[in-house]
Amino acid sequence: MAQPKVQNGGTEKAMTEAVKFTALKPQLTVEAPKAVDAVQFYKTAFGAVLTGRTTHPKRKAEQELPLILSAQLELAGTTILVSDIADDSAAPAKTGGTGVVLCLETEDVEAAIANAIKAGAVAEGDVAEGEDACGGGRVGKVKDPYGFVWEISSPAKNCADVEA
Amino acid sequence: MAQPKVQNGGTEKAMTEAVKFTALKPQLTVEAPKAVDAVQFYKTAFGAVLTGRTTHPKRKAEQELPLILSAQLELAGTTILVSDIADDSAAPAKTGGTGVVLCLETEDVEAAIANAIKAGAVAEGDVAEGEDACGGGRVGKVKDPYGFVWEISSPAKNCADVEA
Repeated sequence: MAQPKVQNGGTEKAMTEAVKFTALKPQLTVEAPKAVDAVQFYKTAFGAVLTGRTTHPKRKAEQELPLILSAQLELAGTTILVSDIADDSAAPAKTGGTGVVLCLETEDVEAAIANAIKAGAVAEGDVAEGEDACGGGRVGKVKDPYGFVWEISSPAKNCADVEA
Repeated sequence: MAQPKVQNGGTEKAMTEAVKFTALKPQLTVEAPKAVDAVQFYKTAFGAVLTGRTTHPKRKAEQELPLILSAQLELAGTTILVSDIADDSAAPAKTGGTGVVLCLETEDVEAAIANAIKAGAVAEGDVAEGEDACGGGRVGKVKDPYGFVWEISSPAKNCADVEA
């Protein structure tokens, strides 16, 4: 069955390309190296279950503790991520170490970011190949007009390195 | 089939009463009265779908616009809430109007809050009958040791007043 070609204009939706998002995960960022403790807290306080964890590649020889790039927790049927703040973190510095980044996953990162910018968001850096928040693949960030940071990435692979 | 009585102690989990959470919804709080615009932005930018909305009861005669207590959006299979900041908002004032509150729903609000406090969270006010974030029923708040605010409430009823 042939699909009729959609004309640009005529509906409000026409300004953005249709992008399917497969997951939305709130990422809680904490001052390094508190992520390990925070994960334990969410397990104890709320019964969250750790389902994946990735650590930052060691960039400084003097670092004793591995920084948590992303610990993935399941809570109330939802996935949340807990991350140590690092230099390349998406968390806004103004929150003093504590912040929430909204991680959206899609196969079409560039189109999703273009749509957000058309709607009024501001790009934070370039889209790049990266490994962030269990994502990997393409990763980009935008700040929306209300101050929230959205990280848009390729769908997460399974996180390795689960210990507890 | 009789359940064996669980002895207190012996496992790390035993310190907290088992509480089942039925939903976790990130609540994005914005400076009033921007919530209406923010909802429109998330619809345009990400294709979010508005599935419910409640407004604050009008408390000041001079208020022209109804404040959004909670607009419920579906995005990537997840529910997010968008709310205007009001006097009784859970959002931390320090973020200057923009913040994220993590809303957890459970039938057992008191036990959930007691568990969180035992684990190291700090109560923010008392548990009360309230109408907040589409919740209704019992509502309480805690701040965790990492600075995040969790609102724990009875499961949300359907939000009325959907316009667009």
